[in-house]
Amino acid sequence: MDIAQGPMPTDPAGLRRLLHRSRRANVARMSAYRNPLPTVDCFIELEDGRIVLVRRKNPPHGWALPGGFVDEGERLDLAARREALEETGLEVELLEQFFTYSDPARDPRKHTISTVFLARASGEPKGGDDAAEARAFDPDSLPELVFDHGEIVRDVLRYRRTGERRRL
Amino acid sequence: MDIAQGPMPTDPAGLRRLLHRSRRANVARMSAYRNPLPTVDCFIELEDGRIVLVRRKNPPHGWALPGGFVDEGERLDLAARREALEETGLEVELLEQFFTYSDPARDPRKHTISTVFLARASGEPKGGDDAAEARAFDPDSLPELVFDHGEIVRDVLRYRRTGERRRL
Repeated sequence: MDIAQGPMPTDPAGLRRLLHRSRRANVARMSAYRNPLPTVDCFIELEDGRIVLVRRKNPPHGWALPGGFVDEGERLDLAARREALEETGLEVELLEQFFTYSDPARDPRKHTISTVFLARASGEPKGGDDAAEARAFDPDSLPELVFDHGEIVRDVLRYRRTGERRRL
Repeated sequence: MDIAQGPMPTDPAGLRRLLHRSRRANVARMSAYRNPLPTVDCFIELEDGRIVLVRRKNPPHGWALPGGFVDEGERLDLAARREALEETGLEVELLEQFFTYSDPARDPRKHTISTVFLARASGEPKGGDDAAEARAFDPDSLPELVFDHGEIVRDVLRYRRTGERRRL
């Protein structure tokens, strides 16, 4: 609806209603180009073998791999290093791109597509940005994770044990 | 700018200007949440070893791997099979997820992040949807490709020859 071409009410109440309709129509038009949002997550191993997790400040609350949204114009690997630094204070070395997870149900808020990187770092993690806390865990006693991060960790640990990568 | 709260001009020309300003402001607001767009591409090998490419109907014109945008709520592997079918008429079998490419310069129009799948199919490709033509090429005599698809094909062929995967 291009309301700027239609008949124009002259009373203030009618005009305000028209503007609100216009705004709704514009938002709907923009939303028609809906797409999943690209994200990154990092599986960070410290030198002593512990895995770095963050406790989320925002819902869904709980422990998760460090990660977040990819910015327009930002490469995935740089987004991964940026998010790791923001949320854990660690300057990570990326080892490899692991797999890209895309199940629409993996995030309850919005369809996100997350590319997961394997990384290593030294030092002790310290929570920042969207992370209320960052902590390193023994891989044998990880807490329950939000999103599909439990599945991701299982895939990574199996890959490191067997060399077998998830195929699809 | 929430112009519905501001002073309201009473002349038609002023009103139309105000509506256009409002529309621009709404579009800018929506665009503030800018993110790269997720896409998929398929490296499809036929039973005789030929590789399936498509000649693009839209700019940038030229040969490319079959692929396209991922829909909201759609898994990457299903998007890859859908795009392959739409553009080549082939029902492909996906073999594995290969790598996700994210260089902001890979598409001159917009930052896209493409997850590439290795696939096989039988039958003869037939162009459809955004593909003006689909054709199978001998891997030793592929045409020049648009986007970063030449780099993708080199990565895939090296992986098949050496088993070595691109890491980052």
